[in-house]
Amino acid sequence: MKIIKLPAVLYKSLKKSRSAGKTIGFVPTMGALHAGHLSLIRQARKENSIVVVSIFVNPAQFGPKEDLKKYPRPLNKDLALCRKERVDFVFSPRPEEMYGEGFSTYVNVERLSETLCGKSRPGHFRGVATIVAKLLNIGQPDIIYLGQKDAQQAIIVKRMARDLNIPVKVKIMPTVRQRDGLALSSRNAYLDKKEKKDALVLSAALNLAKLFIKSGARDASRIINRMKRVVNKKKSSRIDYIAIVDTASLKPVRKISGECLIALAVRIGRTRLIDNIIVRA
Amino acid sequence: MKIIKLPAVLYKSLKKSRSAGKTIGFVPTMGALHAGHLSLIRQARKENSIVVVSIFVNPAQFGPKEDLKKYPRPLNKDLALCRKERVDFVFSPRPEEMYGEGFSTYVNVERLSETLCGKSRPGHFRGVATIVAKLLNIGQPDIIYLGQKDAQQAIIVKRMARDLNIPVKVKIMPTVRQRDGLALSSRNAYLDKKEKKDALVLSAALNLAKLFIKSGARDASRIINRMKRVVNKKKSSRIDYIAIVDTASLKPVRKISGECLIALAVRIGRTRLIDNIIVRA
Repeated sequence: MKIIKLPAVLYKSLKKSRSAGKTIGFVPTMGALHAGHLSLIRQARKENSIVVVSIFVNPAQFGPKEDLKKYPRPLNKDLALCRKERVDFVFSPRPEEMYGEGFSTYVNVERLSETLCGKSRPGHFRGVATIVAKLLNIGQPDIIYLGQKDAQQAIIVKRMARDLNIPVKVKIMPTVRQRDGLALSSRNAYLDKKEKKDALVLSAALNLAKLFIKSGARDASRIINRMKRVVNKKKSSRIDYIAIVDTASLKPVRKISGECLIALAVRIGRTRLIDNIIVRA
Repeated sequence: MKIIKLPAVLYKSLKKSRSAGKTIGFVPTMGALHAGHLSLIRQARKENSIVVVSIFVNPAQFGPKEDLKKYPRPLNKDLALCRKERVDFVFSPRPEEMYGEGFSTYVNVERLSETLCGKSRPGHFRGVATIVAKLLNIGQPDIIYLGQKDAQQAIIVKRMARDLNIPVKVKIMPTVRQRDGLALSSRNAYLDKKEKKDALVLSAALNLAKLFIKSGARDASRIINRMKRVVNKKKSSRIDYIAIVDTASLKPVRKISGECLIALAVRIGRTRLIDNIIVRA
């Protein structure tokens, strides 16, 4: 496994691989790898001759009051995990390398970036789209792997690749959960013992919605209200949003029909968590 | 020479060329080709095994009150010129193909896009950066050729390629002028006989500035005032801007030293013309 710090070095290495007819799978991460990331890496390993994992806590996607500084960076542990999964290249550039002097170009996916998490995290998805565009230009992979856990991010990256004619396949892999239902997230590390229990309200609310829909419920606002009640039972919880939206446009739906995304963001204590499911009716 | 309408078809053809070890030179144009474009195509022809010319009047870079509809589109004449220059591929997509349903991703080079022409043409350079990003992703050329005539555009594309890690060399070729000094532009076709004469004030003002600087003048605002007087002599002229700026940041300079860009935009009748020179002091 090669650990690469410089964009130009990764570009050249992968250019060689491509010329030799090898396919490239890319897994972009901010490190603090958990089983969710590993499922992406394993899928990439299955489907490509070369697997690249980027580990980069991207400053451009953090707001000024967000957790950029305290975001976990257990690089050695991450590298060991990558080695175990037979990753070929880990790309872990320094921020100054990715956002050099005079940096001023941003990629913005309008509308899709302004709703759901975009409302309380202005600029977040601009930062995501920009770093992913950069990584795709450096790596030029055949397939990029993203997790369904970050549903809005996945939809935005898909839209960006299509709109900007980036020749990459975007594969979305299912959310990995603990046995108790909690979706894996590097931010779960911020939760204390009690909060970890309280955090179960996110998946519980989603499960409830799923059950309601299975039993015939179709009115989005009624389902959302039931979900709110579940989440609000915990004192430590503060709802950022609960929404039922179209999976392509992310626009709210009134009546559930066809494929919908049910997504929520909830603060548990000082930690903001997100989760979602896709339902079909 | 192959004429290609679909992005995916161009991508596949060029992928084949690249795999065969061929180098690709790309000349993006809006058609209505003149000797300025031809100089770019000839340079590309000299330096690459494959030459691609795109002909696409890009709606995203026109403001709502601008000349998108009346912009000249002499496609057959353009194709004949490309054939004569031994172009390999002409890419002339339909607008619906480049901006499909739900299109919402834009590339913006902040600051550099907001000054000079960006002030009177809001959104213009966002449209330019976006289409060039798309064309670079489709064509993945080794070198892209741009004209110095559109100095701000060239600087913005360079900045974008660097910021987004697009693996392309940006080559800027000198402005081609008529014998009388008028910089070639597809928009010169809008000028009547008298306006064509009046339009000479742009290059005349630039020449004057050059002379002043040669003879020791260093105060930017004094030079600009002299230029203004030259331009204002013609009744048909209306100055949009005259500026002396740093060639990297496009920020105004007070005292001329090192390399500067002297740029101006002037309306002659209803036609907005631009011109510029780079001076070194």
